[in-house]
Amino acid sequence: MATYLITGSSRGLGLALASIFASKPDVSKVFAAARSQSDGIKTLIANSNGKVEFVQLDVTSQESAKKAAAQVEQSLAGKGLDVLINNAGCMPYTPDGIETMNDLDETFKINVTSVHYVTAAFLPLLKKGSLKKVANISTTLGSISKATTYSVFPVPAYKVSKTALNMLTVQYSLSFAKEGFTFVAVSPGWVQTDLGGPSADLTIEQGSNAVSDIVLRVTKEDTGKFFNIHVPGWEHAEGLNQYAGENVPW
Amino acid sequence: MATYLITGSSRGLGLALASIFASKPDVSKVFAAARSQSDGIKTLIANSNGKVEFVQLDVTSQESAKKAAAQVEQSLAGKGLDVLINNAGCMPYTPDGIETMNDLDETFKINVTSVHYVTAAFLPLLKKGSLKKVANISTTLGSISKATTYSVFPVPAYKVSKTALNMLTVQYSLSFAKEGFTFVAVSPGWVQTDLGGPSADLTIEQGSNAVSDIVLRVTKEDTGKFFNIHVPGWEHAEGLNQYAGENVPW
Repeated sequence: MATYLITGSSRGLGLALASIFASKPDVSKVFAAARSQSDGIKTLIANSNGKVEFVQLDVTSQESAKKAAAQVEQSLAGKGLDVLINNAGCMPYTPDGIETMNDLDETFKINVTSVHYVTAAFLPLLKKGSLKKVANISTTLGSISKATTYSVFPVPAYKVSKTALNMLTVQYSLSFAKEGFTFVAVSPGWVQTDLGGPSADLTIEQGSNAVSDIVLRVTKEDTGKFFNIHVPGWEHAEGLNQYAGENVPW
Repeated sequence: MATYLITGSSRGLGLALASIFASKPDVSKVFAAARSQSDGIKTLIANSNGKVEFVQLDVTSQESAKKAAAQVEQSLAGKGLDVLINNAGCMPYTPDGIETMNDLDETFKINVTSVHYVTAAFLPLLKKGSLKKVANISTTLGSISKATTYSVFPVPAYKVSKTALNMLTVQYSLSFAKEGFTFVAVSPGWVQTDLGGPSADLTIEQGSNAVSDIVLRVTKEDTGKFFNIHVPGWEHAEGLNQYAGENVPW
């Protein structure tokens, strides 16, 4: 029986992932972490027969991450945490050119340093888990190799921070490969969340199912890799977005 | 007659680069930027026949970057700045494992956001320049593809920040390619500076000459690329470090 923690669970992809894993018969507990308990989390918890637990977590605060880990440790009562999904993140726009970007530090803090804080805080519990998986929600827009393809999207702070997150993921993967950990970066595609907007390619259901497929599928042989989701019918889509489950080049 | 500005000029690679460019007959002005005027800068200025000018610059401060640009603008009296070398940076150690890293935000600020501040502040002067070159001093340790090779070096914040710097370089390159700019990331090799330590591969002279070769050589066709230095004799060196002038994979 596996245990999961998902950050940024108040809405969008995080909430959908919490819901998906809560519905699995071989999952015993899902910790839905967020700054505050949204209506979505409340509904999920109410319908979960005690399987879903809210964890107050401001990912930008190392202290908050430690407090959250202490709560989860107490709740697990000696068991480990199997899977951590670092999903919380932000994507600010810079419409007037990269030279006007004024939120790089803040974006880095939310999208990268937070993942480090949360991962480090939960590491002792993850070491006690049997799956030892950490999935960091990244984006193909963070691929340096594909930067030209995505140059039309005016989100430089998001792109730069997600590139850094990919390297952080690889650094963690190298540090904990011998202990059987699986650290992966996952691009969830362009999803119709508050972050992705209504004209995005995929419904939240499609995006979250595809991400959960990757989380379930990866093993320690995959550690340090960067996966795109696979969405049937989108393997050879025209335009910018293909979702063929491939490894994304750095 | 070209004009240069180099950040982090108080010592090490930056000071050596300032000295190299000041010695070129086709260079009219070198702005040696640093937080304070070191003895090295004072000596360089004293021997430069007015060619080298000190610019007070704390790269972590957007205000300081703007003030520095204003000083340079006044000094250039209507001419442009041809080449900007973003050299200032830091490399903190994390000896006790990545999970103990406590300086990621600070390192990102110094190694990435600072480059953004300085580049953005000098962009109007660079647009007036004829060369329009920006070289960002990166490192092969920032290559995600080569992370396994360099896993032995316990400098995760440095690595993650330099990966981000590479993406920032590419984002700038894409934004200003049409205006004829050349933005490149350059790995200076492992150099015997205060940062690199005494057991590094290369003397400051070797490292700075190799970096200056790249800065002089690159054209707008090279924009968005990541170059390793070329040091004769080190093309096929054993171990971690080869300096063959190749493009470094992301």
